[in-house]
Amino acid sequence: MTQKTQTRSGGRSARRAARATALPDHLRPVRPGLEGGTYKPLTPAEMDRIHGAALQALEEIGLADAPPSGVGYLTAAGAEQGADGRIRFPRALVEDAIARANRRIVLCGRDPAHDLDLSGHRVHYGTAGAAVHLVDALGRNYRESTLQDLHDAARITNVLDNIHFLQRPMVARDITDNCEMDLNTVYATTSGTTKHIGTSFYDPAHVKPAIDMLHMIAGGEDRWRERPFMSNSNCFVVPPMKFATESCLVMEECIRYGMPVLLLSAGMAGATAPSTVAGAIVQAVAECLAGLVYVQAVKPDHPAIFGTWPFGLDLRTGAMTGGSGEQALLTAGCAQMHKYYDLPGGAAAGIADAKLPDMQAGWEQMCSNVMAGLSGLNMVYEAAGMHASLLGFCHESLILGDDLIGQALRCVRGIEVSDETMALDQMREVCIGGPGHYLGTSQTLGRMQADHVYPALGDRTSPKEWDEKGKPDLIERATARKEEILANRSAARFDPALDARLREAFRIYLPA
Amino acid sequence: MTQKTQTRSGGRSARRAARATALPDHLRPVRPGLEGGTYKPLTPAEMDRIHGAALQALEEIGLADAPPSGVGYLTAAGAEQGADGRIRFPRALVEDAIARANRRIVLCGRDPAHDLDLSGHRVHYGTAGAAVHLVDALGRNYRESTLQDLHDAARITNVLDNIHFLQRPMVARDITDNCEMDLNTVYATTSGTTKHIGTSFYDPAHVKPAIDMLHMIAGGEDRWRERPFMSNSNCFVVPPMKFATESCLVMEECIRYGMPVLLLSAGMAGATAPSTVAGAIVQAVAECLAGLVYVQAVKPDHPAIFGTWPFGLDLRTGAMTGGSGEQALLTAGCAQMHKYYDLPGGAAAGIADAKLPDMQAGWEQMCSNVMAGLSGLNMVYEAAGMHASLLGFCHESLILGDDLIGQALRCVRGIEVSDETMALDQMREVCIGGPGHYLGTSQTLGRMQADHVYPALGDRTSPKEWDEKGKPDLIERATARKEEILANRSAARFDPALDARLREAFRIYLPA
Repeated sequence: MTQKTQTRSGGRSARRAARATALPDHLRPVRPGLEGGTYKPLTPAEMDRIHGAALQALEEIGLADAPPSGVGYLTAAGAEQGADGRIRFPRALVEDAIARANRRIVLCGRDPAHDLDLSGHRVHYGTAGAAVHLVDALGRNYRESTLQDLHDAARITNVLDNIHFLQRPMVARDITDNCEMDLNTVYATTSGTTKHIGTSFYDPAHVKPAIDMLHMIAGGEDRWRERPFMSNSNCFVVPPMKFATESCLVMEECIRYGMPVLLLSAGMAGATAPSTVAGAIVQAVAECLAGLVYVQAVKPDHPAIFGTWPFGLDLRTGAMTGGSGEQALLTAGCAQMHKYYDLPGGAAAGIADAKLPDMQAGWEQMCSNVMAGLSGLNMVYEAAGMHASLLGFCHESLILGDDLIGQALRCVRGIEVSDETMALDQMREVCIGGPGHYLGTSQTLGRMQADHVYPALGDRTSPKEWDEKGKPDLIERATARKEEILANRSAARFDPALDARLREAFRIYLPA
Repeated sequence: MTQKTQTRSGGRSARRAARATALPDHLRPVRPGLEGGTYKPLTPAEMDRIHGAALQALEEIGLADAPPSGVGYLTAAGAEQGADGRIRFPRALVEDAIARANRRIVLCGRDPAHDLDLSGHRVHYGTAGAAVHLVDALGRNYRESTLQDLHDAARITNVLDNIHFLQRPMVARDITDNCEMDLNTVYATTSGTTKHIGTSFYDPAHVKPAIDMLHMIAGGEDRWRERPFMSNSNCFVVPPMKFATESCLVMEECIRYGMPVLLLSAGMAGATAPSTVAGAIVQAVAECLAGLVYVQAVKPDHPAIFGTWPFGLDLRTGAMTGGSGEQALLTAGCAQMHKYYDLPGGAAAGIADAKLPDMQAGWEQMCSNVMAGLSGLNMVYEAAGMHASLLGFCHESLILGDDLIGQALRCVRGIEVSDETMALDQMREVCIGGPGHYLGTSQTLGRMQADHVYPALGDRTSPKEWDEKGKPDLIERATARKEEILANRSAARFDPALDARLREAFRIYLPA
C-alpha cells in the first residue's frame, strides 16, 4: 500500500553511526526476563476446571511405578499406595504442596550477569532437547550429532543475546559409554558458555561424578551449592500417569546435591496424553503436581520448575509434530496454568517440523515462541535450533533463532502508554507549522535504539540494494556468522589449570 | 526431548484413508470468521487514554487538506474549519459518529459462501498492497508486476481455504493508462476469484466506469447494490493529519455507488507518525475517526472499515519495515482499539521484509499474523505473499501463506475446555487396566479431523523419510502447486456471454 520513503542520506549515515556503538543496558530494547502475560487463552473459570480435573486425576487415578524410595517419601508425606500399586494423592496434600512451593527460583549462570529470575511472568528463551542429528543447513544433510557439535552449540549460545540459557539440545552420539557421555556433556556445555545450563542423566549413578566435576568447576562444594549453574532436566514421568522409576532416582540424587530440578512431563497429545489440548494440559498439570509433591517430600524447599511439556502428534501418521498451532496452544495454556499456581514454569516452544531452516521453519518457530512469550512462560525450552520434530539440531538455525526471538521479545515487551509515548505534543509541533514528519524529532532520534529491535542477519534492504549486494542468502550468512563465532576463542573456556585438573580427573573427549 | 512414536502401520493407513475424503463443513478445524480476542496488549485504562488523546488531537490539531466537497460535508455535520484551513472535530461530533456507526458489515463474495461477517472479534485473512514487483521465488528474481500476475494471484487465492479475500496485492505495471489499469484491475480480480475483493482507484473519474463494469458482472445495479462484492481500499489521509484530497473524492464516489469503503490510514511510525507504538496508534485512531465522521456526513449508514494501518520504519535507514515485533504490536494494538469502539476494523499483518520466501519470511509473516488473529482483528490485510517491505508479491509465498495462516487460525480458535475435552474418563480407562495410550480411543479417532490443521505443503516427515523422498524443497513444492492451480480452468471465470460483453464495453488486456 505504501512505498518506501526516500532515504535522506545525511540523516541515514548519522543514524548508522549512532547504532555502531554498543548499547548500554538501559538502552537495550529487549533483555532476558521481560514480563509477558497479555495473552490469556484460558478464562479463570476454565483454569479452575483444569485444576479441578487434575486434582481428581491425582486422587482417583494416581501414578504407577514409583521406585521404593519414592513410595517411602510419598506415603510418609500423606499419599496413599493402593492395592494396584498406584500412588494416589489426597486433594489437601496437593494443595499444601502448591502453597508451600519454592517460588523464588533464580537459575544461576556461571557468570552472575546471566542469572535468570523465574518469578512472575518473566520470560526466558533457550535451547533444549535430545536431538540425535546435526543438521548441515548449507549441505542439506542430517548426520549423527557429536560432542563437538554440542560444545559448538554452547559456544554459539554464549554470544547470542536472545538465547538466555543452554539446555543440552543434542546427544553426543560419538561417545558410546553412557556415563562418559553424561560427564562429557557436562564438560562440553560448561566449558562453552557461562549461561545457565540444563542437562539430563541416564542413570542415578552418573550424578555423583558429575557433581564432583561441577564442584571443581565452581571452586568447591560450598560455591556450587550457593550458585548452582546447572539444573537437571528430569523426565520423572512416563505419561500417562506413571513415574519413570530410574529418573525419579536421578531426581533424588540431584536434590541431594543441590541441583535445581526441571519436572518434565512430556506427553504426546493423542498417544501418551489425550488428543485434545485441554486434556493434554490436565494430564501434564496432574503429573507435574505429583512431581511437586515428590520433590517437597524429599526436601521441602528444593527449587523445582513446573515443566508441563505436552507435545503435539500428527494423527495421520502417529508421529510427533511440534510446529503446529495445536502445539502453540498446548504450551501457552500450560504457561497460564503455571501462573494460576504462581509457580516458576517451563514448556517447549520453537520446535520446527521442517527439516531445514526454511520458510516453514520460520513460521513454526515463531508461532509457538511468540505465543509462549506473550503468555508469560518463564522458561521457553527448545526455542531455537530444533528441527525435524526434535530429531535434528542446527547451528545456523540457532543463530537465526536469535533474530527470531529478538522480535518475539519485542512483542513480549509490549506497548508502553504514557504522555510521552502517546506523543500528542510532538504531533502538534509536527503538524502545525512544523516539518510535517517525525524523522528528525528528538523523540524519534532519542528512542531509535531503546524502542527498536534491529535484526542481525534478517535482511531489510530494498530489492535494488539486495540485487546490488549479490542477493545474499540467509543460510549462507548464518553459516558465515557461525564460522566467525567458532573461529574466536571462547570467553567461557576454563582457565588452563582448572582444565588440566578436570582432564586428569575425568576422561574428557574434547581436544584441549 | 521425546523421540517419534513408532508408527503402527494398520492404524496409519486407516487414518490416512479417513483424511483422503473431503471434510464436511462442521468437521473443518478452521474457517473464516473464527473469534479472536484472547490477546490484549492494552489495558482498559490504556485504551481510555489512547481514545482521549485521539479526541484531543481531532479537537485541537484537526486535519488539513479536505477537498471543498469534504469541507462542506464536514462543517455541515458540525466540524469547524479554522483560519489555517484545518478541519477540527468537536468531541461530541466524534462520539456521535462512533455511536451511530454501521456495525453490521458483511463483505460479500461474488459467491455468497465467501461472505465475511465483520462483527465481534471475527478474524479474516487476505491479501492487499500495491507491490510493484513480482517475486520469482525459484529464480530468486524481482521483475515488474503485470496484469496477468494479478489475475494469477486472484486465481490462486480462489482455491486457498485460508485466504479469505483478495485485496489487490500488486499493480499492473504493464498498463500505462491509469484508467485502463484501474478497470483492468477490476476485471482481472473479479474474473479470478468469487471471494470478496478490495481495490483502489487513482482518480475519482475512474469510479463510475468501474461501477458500470461491476453492474454488468453483478447482473444489474440492483444486484450490485444488494451484494457489493468489491470494496474500495481508500487512503483518505496523508499522515500526519491531512486529508488526501483526491482520495476523499474517490471515497465520495464509492459511497455514491454503494461500494463499501476501507478507511485506510497508513502512517509510518517515525516518519509520518510518531515513532512510538502508542503514538502511532493514537494518530491512526484519530485519522480514522475523522474518516468515520466524513463517511457518515456523506451517507449515515454507509459501511466503512476502520483501517488503522500504521507501519514500522527502520530508523537506521528511514526505510519502511513490516516484519518487526514493533509492527506486530502496532497492528494488535489497533485491533484492540477497533473493539474498544466495537467497530469493524482492519490492519496490516503478515508483511515480510525478506526478499524471498525464506526462514526470515516465515518468522516475519507468522509473528504479526498470529498476533493479529489472537487480538481479534476482523480484516488482516497483506497477510500472505508480501515481501521486501511491500515492494514485492510472490505467488509461491501466497500458497505457503495458506499453510501458515491455517496454523495461525488454529491458534485463534483456541482451547476448548469441557468435560469431553478434559478427558478425565478417557484418562481413567487408558491408565487403569487400559492400553496405556490414547492412540486408538474413540475420542482420538473421532476428533482427528475436527481438531487438527494438517499442512498442505509443510513437511512433517522424519529425516529418514525426507531423505528417501529426495529431500523435497519447500519452494519447489510451492512452485509445482502454483503450476497445478494455474493449469486448471478457474471456477471463478465469467460465462462466455458476459465475458464477450465486457470485452466489447471495455478494453480488456487479459487474453480471452
